[in-house]
Amino acid sequence: MMIRVVKIGGNVIKDPAALRDFLKDFSQIDGKKILVHGGGKEATELSKKLGVETVMIEGRRVTDQDTISIVTMVYAGLINKRIVAILQSFSCNAIGLTGADANVIPAVKRPANPIDYGFVGDINPEKINVEFISELLSGGYTPVFCAICHDKEGNLLNCNADTIASSVALACSKIDKVQLIYCFEKNGILKDVDDEDSVIPHITPDSFEELKSAGIISGGMIPKVFNALESIKNGVSEVRICNSNAINSEGGTHITNV
Amino acid sequence: MMIRVVKIGGNVIKDPAALRDFLKDFSQIDGKKILVHGGGKEATELSKKLGVETVMIEGRRVTDQDTISIVTMVYAGLINKRIVAILQSFSCNAIGLTGADANVIPAVKRPANPIDYGFVGDINPEKINVEFISELLSGGYTPVFCAICHDKEGNLLNCNADTIASSVALACSKIDKVQLIYCFEKNGILKDVDDEDSVIPHITPDSFEELKSAGIISGGMIPKVFNALESIKNGVSEVRICNSNAINSEGGTHITNV
Repeated sequence: MMIRVVKIGGNVIKDPAALRDFLKDFSQIDGKKILVHGGGKEATELSKKLGVETVMIEGRRVTDQDTISIVTMVYAGLINKRIVAILQSFSCNAIGLTGADANVIPAVKRPANPIDYGFVGDINPEKINVEFISELLSGGYTPVFCAICHDKEGNLLNCNADTIASSVALACSKIDKVQLIYCFEKNGILKDVDDEDSVIPHITPDSFEELKSAGIISGGMIPKVFNALESIKNGVSEVRICNSNAINSEGGTHITNV
Repeated sequence: MMIRVVKIGGNVIKDPAALRDFLKDFSQIDGKKILVHGGGKEATELSKKLGVETVMIEGRRVTDQDTISIVTMVYAGLINKRIVAILQSFSCNAIGLTGADANVIPAVKRPANPIDYGFVGDINPEKINVEFISELLSGGYTPVFCAICHDKEGNLLNCNADTIASSVALACSKIDKVQLIYCFEKNGILKDVDDEDSVIPHITPDSFEELKSAGIISGGMIPKVFNALESIKNGVSEVRICNSNAINSEGGTHITNV
């Protein structure tokens, strides 16, 4: 058996028809599966409506008291429960979770130096309560994680959904083979960013160095592939980066050790 | 053993210090326990900030598309996760749930006639997934329910937290003895509403009729006691109505069959 950990990002979440289509596909994945979702764009929209300024530093949301309330409402409430209800309608027995629930993902508040991000948390995959996740999966439940965790001292913390996905995948790799699937709006890692047909089907640590040197993988794709390779190095069997409409195909870029 | 189902209402939830004190007391209850919470006042506040009109008919919130989003954000996100994080800080292994999660409380959208309440749900206690609740309790977890359920067709539904509490209590009474505790701002059912020392310590179906005839129980207390007696009739061992600062005492009004 294999556990599939699927990360879905913002563009699909914001489009009700696309979200429904994606969740229908997700519900049809055979076997044990876990969904991790973001929702930053909807949080920014709610912040605007409530007159709370959104401050981003290096792509990360500075999370003051008002902002942690907003992201908790949007991620753990609105988006998480909307996803759970739709999955239930497709007979997928989803259960929505933050890291605080059942203490499944404890986090640590990021130090205020050099940058004070406020209520932002970092995760240690080794602290994840994989026994609880395993019990849910064995019972036929599908955990749906948003990127809110806690510090065990009563504070909720805003985490990064990509990191939740890789950390959960890593933790689960102690109990089973794990495939980690990052869905986004492109068909995979592309040789030519303007050509959706130029997907690189397979990347290994060795080919990554070559592709980087040749300038074929560049910009924002470098950390994406780098993080995927880190997951592989630490125990995840395979990372796939693909279009959100392709989770049930073998499409996209497969990243493996060899 | 006994399962305790505790319902906590709005006044305590709105007051951070009182909520913390209450949750500390709750965390110290020995044995299996379940918390059910409301949050209507905070939902009304957020509605106002977002310019969404709150319409109440006979004490029930008319729940249009905007309003179901708001109550999902406030109940399932903000309040539920705040409570879970605080309980975790008191070493109570809480897990926050809506009725959609693990399909634990399926509901049915209330018919639009005679009054169209919109996305409001009614619950059949016999449909509650008591096996899942039982697994959580046996595993040492403490379920924390908000009053959002779903229709299994992808729609979230706004339910009544008192009804969630009594329905969960009733469902659990099939597997164990259950005490249902309603916490509010008074010391119990009072003989004289202006005298907090006039708590009626014990009510049975027979004494209820006498107290009603004598005009001692009147107004809003009648449906409260009536619903408690219904729970008793259907399998709950005892209902206690008490002050939210008295859950670990024997104070308040005990309602039993004899």
